[in-house]
Amino acid sequence: AARRVASFGTTIFTEINVLAQRYNALNLGQGRPDFDTPPDIIAQLVAALQAGQYNQYAPGPGTSSLRRAVAAHAARFYGLEIDPERGVIVTAGATEGIFAAVLGLVDPGDEVIVIEPFYDSYVPNILMAGATPVYVPLHPPQWTFDPAELRAAFTRKTRALILNTPHNPCGRVFSREELTGIAELCIEHDVTVIADEVYEHLIFDDARHIPIATLPGMFERTVTVSSSGKAFSATGWKIGWVYGHPDLVDGVARAHQFITFAVHHPTQEAIAYALGLPDSYYCGLKELYEHKRQLLLQALDAAGLPYRVPEGTYFVLADFSPVFDGTPLEFARYLISEIGVAGIPPETFYCPEHAHIGSKYLRFSFCKNDETLLQAGERLAKLA
Amino acid sequence: AARRVASFGTTIFTEINVLAQRYNALNLGQGRPDFDTPPDIIAQLVAALQAGQYNQYAPGPGTSSLRRAVAAHAARFYGLEIDPERGVIVTAGATEGIFAAVLGLVDPGDEVIVIEPFYDSYVPNILMAGATPVYVPLHPPQWTFDPAELRAAFTRKTRALILNTPHNPCGRVFSREELTGIAELCIEHDVTVIADEVYEHLIFDDARHIPIATLPGMFERTVTVSSSGKAFSATGWKIGWVYGHPDLVDGVARAHQFITFAVHHPTQEAIAYALGLPDSYYCGLKELYEHKRQLLLQALDAAGLPYRVPEGTYFVLADFSPVFDGTPLEFARYLISEIGVAGIPPETFYCPEHAHIGSKYLRFSFCKNDETLLQAGERLAKLA
Ligand SMILES: CSCCC(=O)C(=O)O
Ligand SMILES: CSCCC(=O)C(=O)O
Repeated sequence: AARRVASFGTTIFTEINVLAQRYNALNLGQGRPDFDTPPDIIAQLVAALQAGQYNQYAPGPGTSSLRRAVAAHAARFYGLEIDPERGVIVTAGATEGIFAAVLGLVDPGDEVIVIEPFYDSYVPNILMAGATPVYVPLHPPQWTFDPAELRAAFTRKTRALILNTPHNPCGRVFSREELTGIAELCIEHDVTVIADEVYEHLIFDDARHIPIATLPGMFERTVTVSSSGKAFSATGWKIGWVYGHPDLVDGVARAHQFITFAVHHPTQEAIAYALGLPDSYYCGLKELYEHKRQLLLQALDAAGLPYRVPEGTYFVLADFSPVFDGTPLEFARYLISEIGVAGIPPETFYCPEHAHIGSKYLRFSFCKNDETLLQAGERLAKLA
Repeated sequence: AARRVASFGTTIFTEINVLAQRYNALNLGQGRPDFDTPPDIIAQLVAALQAGQYNQYAPGPGTSSLRRAVAAHAARFYGLEIDPERGVIVTAGATEGIFAAVLGLVDPGDEVIVIEPFYDSYVPNILMAGATPVYVPLHPPQWTFDPAELRAAFTRKTRALILNTPHNPCGRVFSREELTGIAELCIEHDVTVIADEVYEHLIFDDARHIPIATLPGMFERTVTVSSSGKAFSATGWKIGWVYGHPDLVDGVARAHQFITFAVHHPTQEAIAYALGLPDSYYCGLKELYEHKRQLLLQALDAAGLPYRVPEGTYFVLADFSPVFDGTPLEFARYLISEIGVAGIPPETFYCPEHAHIGSKYLRFSFCKNDETLLQAGERLAKLA
């Protein structure tokens, strides 16, 4: 194998899925809904498959219908003006979108700032581009960054910062104040933001998702990556997109055309439809997940595991130190084999030097059937 | 944009598609069937969509059903023994498969041998990996390589060779003798072969497709990339795979998990079904394309454009020098605007130093309805 991949292990998601299956544990690990995509969206995909004109190559940058839908969605929810032709490309999920952004916008030798804990593809993406990750941790129990630590991470070599809000695995939705702090430093140091906003529609109570691209001076230095998997419970369809200023999207598109070239054509039609669903759909989604969050948080309360209430995403980081003495991976194994519940140990979301920061937390996902969550609650109660 | 993508233009396919549409030309450019996927394969995908269990993340390396089908297909057609668990991964089309192979198996500073003319993603893929392409041309009019030129391309830095057979755009199916010459050099210089075999089922007359992995000593140094687009007329579904020795596939899988992570889940079920179709399906495909090839070659004969009869793929390179004085791009533009037929100029399939080798050829595709091909014939006849 090439040196660049020699350090990459198997993703922790696969590892935990295998263990969960072996012990028949309730799987609150990977953010993989155990309920289905809404039937009307499936029906749109079936119709596209049977229409006889969508089964061959889509245009490489995405179908016009989906690119227009992405632009319309950004206008409707965030007041952003996006050029559907030159300011949007469609990718094989957000995972490809983030990689294409890194390959298209970052040079070998550049530094890229990553907020910790981070989604597990960011650092391999940065390494595959020959660049160097620079880490800024979020501090428990509130999962906020220290503004001085953030400032210290910027150097003359900083080319980009990867920002994930709503944040997996912390469940944070960064506030306007926090985002402004990031934005000011990026402007001061002429840094591009790669904004991973795949949980944009999973926002609870009165939290508000603020795309950093909407902050003053940020539109021209931000590419925003999102996808359809979480908002439409269709994680298996792998339709993502990148949007922003045409000059930046051009760089991303140049990389994309030689990574996957084009994306599943009929599914693009279905997602174009889904993005245009009325507000009632998006409100229903929020209510659905507020309810599921409630079920999981009650279970953690009963088990005696503290947490910061997630403002967004379908994840929560639970502090297991009151009930278990050991590493997150050890606790994850114990929980799977003895209690019958699977969660994700966050070690791989940290650089080795910072792994201690997450060393008493396990991530649980609540994108699960109510029954699964209730049953997990009964099992977790044995921890108390 | 990053320096690595600054040299990448828009793919020639997009450029010609735009021109063809503007002039309402018959599009024999991109290898994009203008007929539909077989209805039984579509029905399998519809069933998977409606089954309620395939719309969330597939396993990152691919579903077991598709990986087993890929292994069974390699055993059935080529007598290869592939481990479905450790020797196969599923990718977002062959395009991602080739890129994952390059990123997973080639280091910065390595050299990668590319046979010219080449499919247009190979060189950007090599450049994105920080490696250097080394070119070996096929010589017209027979499109064979010079064994001495091939030998001279190998150096101490050679890490891999990308081999495309059946060959786009030449329509060659490399003979056992040719493949043996390549294999011997790869063994002598300890070089890995990345074999792009996406046209494996488009083979005509009594030509035979020989995967280089079946040659003595080659299995352990070859990864084979293929896909479902061409064999099942479903180029818009973007399901590809990489198979071979587990040690090599492991490197490819490490890259894949951070490029796209996983691939469209329900479609993998449909393609698992398709790969198992009886011989009658594959024979029917061969006959269908032999007939379409016949229609296009008759048209080229009538127009007075010489060619080597394609032994495979759905492409032919036609020599336009008897009827036009100019570059391939000039001829392509003339043909679109004045004659109403689109083809692909092969300039971008060559390094600048070798572009003269293809300078009197245009590539036509015959994956088109009979009517389109007949009408194109009438239009091309005006050239004579
Ligand atoms: C490869 S898992 C994709 C993201 C997610 O669902 C998770 O973090 O669990
Ligand atoms: C991006 S086009 C994919 C391959 C093909 O169909 C062609 O060479 O025309």
